Amino acid sequence: MDLKKYILDVENFPIDGVVFKDITPLLNNVEAFKYTVDKMVEYVKEKGADVIVAPEARGFLFASAVAYAAGCRFVLVRKPGKLPREVKDVEYELEYGKGHIQIHKDDLKKGDKVVIVDDVLATGGTMKAIVELVQDDQASVNGIVFLADLSFLHDPELFSEYDSKSLITY
Amino acid sequence: MDLKKYILDVENFPIDGVVFKDITPLLNNVEAFKYTVDKMVEYVKEKGADVIVAPEARGFLFASAVAYAAGCRFVLVRKPGKLPREVKDVEYELEYGKGHIQIHKDDLKKGDKVVIVDDVLATGGTMKAIVELVQDDQASVNGIVFLADLSFLHDPELFSEYDSKSLITY
Repeated sequence: MDLKKYILDVENFPIDGVVFKDITPLLNNVEAFKYTVDKMVEYVKEKGADVIVAPEARGFLFASAVAYAAGCRFVLVRKPGKLPREVKDVEYELEYGKGHIQIHKDDLKKGDKVVIVDDVLATGGTMKAIVELVQDDQASVNGIVFLADLSFLHDPELFSEYDSKSLITY
Repeated sequence: MDLKKYILDVENFPIDGVVFKDITPLLNNVEAFKYTVDKMVEYVKEKGADVIVAPEARGFLFASAVAYAAGCRFVLVRKPGKLPREVKDVEYELEYGKGHIQIHKDDLKKGDKVVIVDDVLATGGTMKAIVELVQDDQASVNGIVFLADLSFLHDPELFSEYDSKSLITY
């Protein structure tokens, strides 16, 4: 299935000069969404994962269905002020300034085999921070899966230490 | 299955005096998450829905799996500045001030049969605004399903015009 047919280019969003990849038409098509989730589940099973980790908010759009269909635990990475119990925090670089993301301290355990799920790989800054949060728990990153890779925005070697896959590449 | 076992009370979060219902242990348990999604899917099928609508971010945690397993389209309600194409906007009351939520103008069509999915029903302000967005599209709200109803925070007649269900009630 050609998933690119279900992803719209929206010009000048969120700011002038940027072309935004709008994935909502894919979610709004039963066959395209099912195909996407099934491909991600196939990858999760190949990697022998037992936990899906995903960042808010767009990672959740796929991770919930993938965790359900693969029979994996589902662990959240969120922005500060959202997770109510004790958290680990990682700071990462944004284009202007710094961002923070967090995971509950007790959500992953030593030996957990994790696949991280997100929608779009752009510069990769957030994903690097998520990998750090997962490994700090002594869980292993068995794989990283994206719907779409905007490969023109990052070094091709960005995640070469890890197994990673994107269903489509721009 | 007693789902309350997988929901933690966290005191004084996000502010002093509030007891927050933390649903992350439920997501982190394969059987509890599967049971929750399966019950929601059962409801969606009873209501004959073909579209799942859910608000960011916690609605997505269940709606993605429900849409996948029920074979429904998945349409997002988001905060301002997140949906890239033309939107409809509804303003609603918050405890202090006002909030806005949005849906893409072309995501629902006349005649769509919608079930709205969210995690927790508190005062119901956001859900009332979502119902308004859906109906403005001439789609029908066939049902509303929550994981948990904090019934002490709202009028029992709040959604009496609609079919609604909560898997657990506090």
